[in-house]
Amino acid sequence: MGYRGGSWVARRLIDTDIHERVLYEDLITYLENPWKRYITDCHWLQEKHMPYTQPAVAGVDRADARVPDGRPAGTDLAFMQQQLLDANQHSFGVLTGALDPSPSSMHGWYEMATALASAYNDWQIENWLEKDERLYGSVHIAAQDPQGAVREIERVGPHPKMVQILLPIDDNLWGDPYYHPIYEAAEHHDLMIGMHHNEPPTHFGRWPRYFIEWHTLIPTSHMIQVSNMVYNGVFEKYPQLKLMMIEGGFTYVPHLMRKMDQQYTDLRHEVPWVKRMPSRIVREHVRFTTQPMEEMSKHDFLQFVDQMGSEDIICFSTDYPHWDYDSPARALPALGEPLRQKIFFDNAKAFYPKLPEVHGGGGNRETSSV
Amino acid sequence: MGYRGGSWVARRLIDTDIHERVLYEDLITYLENPWKRYITDCHWLQEKHMPYTQPAVAGVDRADARVPDGRPAGTDLAFMQQQLLDANQHSFGVLTGALDPSPSSMHGWYEMATALASAYNDWQIENWLEKDERLYGSVHIAAQDPQGAVREIERVGPHPKMVQILLPIDDNLWGDPYYHPIYEAAEHHDLMIGMHHNEPPTHFGRWPRYFIEWHTLIPTSHMIQVSNMVYNGVFEKYPQLKLMMIEGGFTYVPHLMRKMDQQYTDLRHEVPWVKRMPSRIVREHVRFTTQPMEEMSKHDFLQFVDQMGSEDIICFSTDYPHWDYDSPARALPALGEPLRQKIFFDNAKAFYPKLPEVHGGGGNRETSSV
Repeated sequence: MGYRGGSWVARRLIDTDIHERVLYEDLITYLENPWKRYITDCHWLQEKHMPYTQPAVAGVDRADARVPDGRPAGTDLAFMQQQLLDANQHSFGVLTGALDPSPSSMHGWYEMATALASAYNDWQIENWLEKDERLYGSVHIAAQDPQGAVREIERVGPHPKMVQILLPIDDNLWGDPYYHPIYEAAEHHDLMIGMHHNEPPTHFGRWPRYFIEWHTLIPTSHMIQVSNMVYNGVFEKYPQLKLMMIEGGFTYVPHLMRKMDQQYTDLRHEVPWVKRMPSRIVREHVRFTTQPMEEMSKHDFLQFVDQMGSEDIICFSTDYPHWDYDSPARALPALGEPLRQKIFFDNAKAFYPKLPEVHGGGGNRETSSV
Repeated sequence: MGYRGGSWVARRLIDTDIHERVLYEDLITYLENPWKRYITDCHWLQEKHMPYTQPAVAGVDRADARVPDGRPAGTDLAFMQQQLLDANQHSFGVLTGALDPSPSSMHGWYEMATALASAYNDWQIENWLEKDERLYGSVHIAAQDPQGAVREIERVGPHPKMVQILLPIDDNLWGDPYYHPIYEAAEHHDLMIGMHHNEPPTHFGRWPRYFIEWHTLIPTSHMIQVSNMVYNGVFEKYPQLKLMMIEGGFTYVPHLMRKMDQQYTDLRHEVPWVKRMPSRIVREHVRFTTQPMEEMSKHDFLQFVDQMGSEDIICFSTDYPHWDYDSPARALPALGEPLRQKIFFDNAKAFYPKLPEVHGGGGNRETSSV
């Protein structure tokens, strides 16, 4: 890792990006026919299109996150509790899924995508949300069928532990009016929108030659979605809607805010439905998770905060169990305690309306010498 | 415009982005048959693919830059001299073309693209470079035929007033080995590479719904090319090669440097031919032109400089005669004189090896109250 962290003293911690992983066979009991038999009899497996592997020690996951019985990382609640939630004394963790299957990214067979999303949600509720009070969940949908997606949001969105609707960033443009019924349903059910990249082809719709190149440019796919949501007027049309941009980091945000404001100043007559400066819309409606944290000093970090004009829009995340996991003990530089507490807890707490209050002064206390 | 500028006192000025514009009929005398008759008899005109217009007062150009006799902006040297070069007392200006035709962006008929590039270069030399000592030029090529492109570089690259090879950013990935002969020729002839977006489809290879959205995300197309050149090892293979990123601004650079360094630290075994930290490669080999300057204070500007770790990588440009032209009198905040002089002159002077020395303490002196 090698981050210059200070000792970590965080009383409360919300982790805004945890990847629980489903195995297809785990979904079978949550599926009806004909969908069930596509898995049991036809051995359906969604194809992945990425032309490389993740060139890390154990692929996409931390090598030490594999479950001791051999199952893949992220598949076992007890092991996750031990390795992540208890070890860091998480107050809350938001499950974002392994995104595989990612129903909204399926370019065909939307009905199967809808069935998979429902099965995934039921599996998530039964095996994770209702088994650990710290864990909160994401409603998975097949957004390419917005009306079907709304039905699924209405079915599981009222669950007290569902806090957001997950939209994977692939090559969809989520600000398009086609998807607005999803935002209306999100507002109605006090759910946030969480966007997390799936495998967007970042280079003009194509794959670059190397994984490192693709992985470097992931934030461009986040930039596209934020500007797409702003200019399509989504936050004017749904004034209560909030958006969490997950696993893109935040160092691109000063540039994007400035560039959107400049363009809005020059060209706002093209988008008269956008009523406020884009940077203000972002500060009010959008939050950004920290992982993968670039190496930076306190001075560097505070410059980015100053450039964004807000201490309230960065939320901590680990990305557990992926290989580039950020430890809460080491990922951030030694910021002052008020700002650290905002990033570790307060900012996400204020943003997810369904998270409960935490009482008492307890929580975690850990010291790292890194 | 509305930039918070101070009074402007610049002794010397290099403008790194001026768009002279060709009319197809002007190229006829520089073409042989069969190419000539495709224009004279077949009325060939390269199609533009953008689904919107530039929603500015007079389209792509400043309304007041139209030549008084009615010809489009950028077509007349005398008018450009009066409105731009004399008014601002330019020391030097680098012509980047109107990029229309942009031979390297033609997806078919490469032979015609090659002929057009040659005709364009001859027209540029005769009508601009040899008629004003302040103007320097760009070698236009049909890069999709790298061997043909090298022949054109060898033909006109030695001209004393050609300073760079222009590669339009479209959906090409310029770091690909296919294009490396171009970089070998560039090194051999002391030419820089200048990259300027043509009309890259920024949203996963597609067009967003609005021009403002596309225009906001242009820097993502620059980010793609910089990382593509770095990870493909172009600057290791051609250690003298230098790259000017034109009309993308610079506020995305702190993020890109940090993100590339982070990814390189984690994944450099995938690209072992890259020997140095990407941010160091960028500081040594890449420069960024200012236009379109976002509105910022001196404090803001100096933060970006601090984040990039260099005062040497920003070069001033006007983008004349486009509607979002940046005036040298108003575009920059009131930086200290040493830094302003670097941005207005020294940085570009050090980067273009073929620009001559400027003698004497003259130059321009202008005061703006904006």
